[in-house]
Amino acid sequence: MENSSICAISSPPGMGGVALIRVSGNMAKLAVEKFLRISLDKPRHAYFGIWKNNKGNLDEVLCTYFKGPASFTGEDVVEIACHGSVFIQEQILNDLAGSGIQIAQPGEFTMRAYLNKKMDLSQAEGVMDLISSRSQMAHQVAMKQMKGGLSSEIHSLRDKLLHFASMIELELDFSEEDVEFADRTQLKELLNEIHQYLTKLYSSFKTGNALKNGIPVAIVGRPNAGKSTLLNTLLNEDRAIVSNIPGTTRDTVEERFFIEGIEFRLMDTAGIRETEDEIEKAGIERSLNKITEAQIVIYIYDITQITEDELRSDLEMIEAKNEEIIAVANKTDISSVDSEHLNISAKNKTGISMLEKKLHEMASSHLDLNQTIITNARHAQLLSLALDELNKVKMGLDHDVPSDLVAMDIRAVIRNLSEITGDISTDELLGNIFSRFCIGK
Amino acid sequence: MENSSICAISSPPGMGGVALIRVSGNMAKLAVEKFLRISLDKPRHAYFGIWKNNKGNLDEVLCTYFKGPASFTGEDVVEIACHGSVFIQEQILNDLAGSGIQIAQPGEFTMRAYLNKKMDLSQAEGVMDLISSRSQMAHQVAMKQMKGGLSSEIHSLRDKLLHFASMIELELDFSEEDVEFADRTQLKELLNEIHQYLTKLYSSFKTGNALKNGIPVAIVGRPNAGKSTLLNTLLNEDRAIVSNIPGTTRDTVEERFFIEGIEFRLMDTAGIRETEDEIEKAGIERSLNKITEAQIVIYIYDITQITEDELRSDLEMIEAKNEEIIAVANKTDISSVDSEHLNISAKNKTGISMLEKKLHEMASSHLDLNQTIITNARHAQLLSLALDELNKVKMGLDHDVPSDLVAMDIRAVIRNLSEITGDISTDELLGNIFSRFCIGK
Repeated sequence: MENSSICAISSPPGMGGVALIRVSGNMAKLAVEKFLRISLDKPRHAYFGIWKNNKGNLDEVLCTYFKGPASFTGEDVVEIACHGSVFIQEQILNDLAGSGIQIAQPGEFTMRAYLNKKMDLSQAEGVMDLISSRSQMAHQVAMKQMKGGLSSEIHSLRDKLLHFASMIELELDFSEEDVEFADRTQLKELLNEIHQYLTKLYSSFKTGNALKNGIPVAIVGRPNAGKSTLLNTLLNEDRAIVSNIPGTTRDTVEERFFIEGIEFRLMDTAGIRETEDEIEKAGIERSLNKITEAQIVIYIYDITQITEDELRSDLEMIEAKNEEIIAVANKTDISSVDSEHLNISAKNKTGISMLEKKLHEMASSHLDLNQTIITNARHAQLLSLALDELNKVKMGLDHDVPSDLVAMDIRAVIRNLSEITGDISTDELLGNIFSRFCIGK
Repeated sequence: MENSSICAISSPPGMGGVALIRVSGNMAKLAVEKFLRISLDKPRHAYFGIWKNNKGNLDEVLCTYFKGPASFTGEDVVEIACHGSVFIQEQILNDLAGSGIQIAQPGEFTMRAYLNKKMDLSQAEGVMDLISSRSQMAHQVAMKQMKGGLSSEIHSLRDKLLHFASMIELELDFSEEDVEFADRTQLKELLNEIHQYLTKLYSSFKTGNALKNGIPVAIVGRPNAGKSTLLNTLLNEDRAIVSNIPGTTRDTVEERFFIEGIEFRLMDTAGIRETEDEIEKAGIERSLNKITEAQIVIYIYDITQITEDELRSDLEMIEAKNEEIIAVANKTDISSVDSEHLNISAKNKTGISMLEKKLHEMASSHLDLNQTIITNARHAQLLSLALDELNKVKMGLDHDVPSDLVAMDIRAVIRNLSEITGDISTDELLGNIFSRFCIGK
């Protein structure tokens, strides 16, 4: 596969003013030149030409040649900018395919960049996250990962473990003599440090995942407290903001909203009250589950209706499931009193900006962008496995397990970390990762 | 407006591997350099850079500067290839907008190309047709128009008319002396030639329009003749062919199919038979209307069921409405006899390639790609107006109308033709034309 040349449409699918087709591999330059009948001799120069196939002149195109290894994939790459007609895009691909250039699999360009050591695996995964990120924060984390932020953390962890392992293994070489080169106390300290570090990285996944997919927020309350009005108000505010983003998909607009670069995912819930109705009970059960799932719960109540007892019992019930609560007193426009909570009128849209500020505050309290944040489930799983193995190492030291067994466990930790950066990888793993990329990347 | 700089996403909307943003105008280069913090000094060189705004590093981008007038718009142009995330695309546009670059109106880049005389109006319209063309033939016609095929025909027509007009106007200068410089017989010959030419061009619109939007084909027949099976067979054959075209919209796949570069638009019809049922009658009425609307009618019958009388009466009824008929005998797989018509089995897919060949033949019989074909309703309308004026000129010559009045009518013909190429245009006309373009072109 490494020797074949590949091509794909790299711009978004469909019709547009311009489309971009990318060709990578040894044959890329020659194949494109054949259809242009000009030479793309100067690298990185945009050549104007007429793409001509056996049916005649197809299009006026701009072609730029990137000589490997100074290219995205590390191979020779040619980028063809053609008119964005679906027909033309398809024809150019067909023409290239007819010249022995294979149609690329999803993610194959990035996979080649990885195989040619232009980036490691976690950076490649950062590329995908970058492309699909919707918010400022998710984008920032993905950008850091693509630029190698996570990789360098993993490498420094691995170096420490290698140092540790080498000390242990040194003892093995002299095992006949029953010496301990590695000071056990120092070793345990180093181990604790690594453990703490790994744990911190691992636990950042909850935040990272919420950043990437939107922070889940449940709006709960009794029937007619104003849940739907609040939801619409929050969404509408946002709709005005995102309406000028081209290609924003409808499902994104309908349930998601952004506050200063953070994406929130609103979960609607059924009204909560005491009931004997079995169907309603089931709905309320689902609402209660969503309280647990959510990262933040907005509890909204009607200040003109609720009793103090009801308010207290509601809050106790929610607090038992989730401590991140914003309590909101609604309908303050028709009430003569204020509450100790956030006073809003969902209908008149008063107090909404305070609510948004509070949401943003709670979301970012867990967020330290200077710290490396894990956003990828694969990385989280490998970190979790690494932690398990590390615990074995600690147990081993505590119970004076033979050094060769301890060394084996350390190697297992290193192996897990190496899979994150792809220093160790299998074809199956790569296939799994890159098949989730978009075509042309 | 000419002095402002504009930007837009030129690649198709949405998420992809790479997106292309185009900036045009005096400020284009400086504005982009500000975010890259490098100079794009060498024109047509793809510079790698990091796009950095006040929030930090946004993306790794490739930027290419095209120095005007050697650019698409004729102005300074910078093309930015960024990662195809919707967020990044939006941010770059926002950053540019914040630097005083205006977000471009649909078609504004091409309008500037027209205003800067990089192309005339019919060529600009060809660009739009090129982008939206779905078939080889439609594409070929659009490509010819974009490359100036129609323009040169119009110019040659206009030159002839100008010659004609100058001869007539010469007489006016000497009108006191009552001389006729222009030989009336020669004039009439020239006029007839132009008339014939214009008529031919005008009448090519029917073909051109069908090419552009798909040639309408009605499948008609009695109930259970196999219309739907045939339709599915024709569509399915095609579906396999077009399935690898990215971005093909669903409505395109469902009703359209292609045979060797020609697009056909299948019109389904209700089964035709004698009936007293009022609702069914209405359905049949619509079927009969579609026979008239279609360019080609496929009449399908069940060879195992139909009587000779029924067959004759069906064919007579259709022929009265449309002469372009392909009669098809279906279910020949379970019949012992063959018909004089095309014998097929829609179910077993036998005879289908013969039917497709026949369809292609009939569609291309009106088609001479060496001849210029009008595909644009605006052009057709202007040609029709030009023909009306030309008839007035002919009438004038026949009835010895004073030369100055004849000259006025000739000027009117010239004006109509000049509107096609945009040698004469109004802001309203331009707004009308370019607003139908896609964003970023």
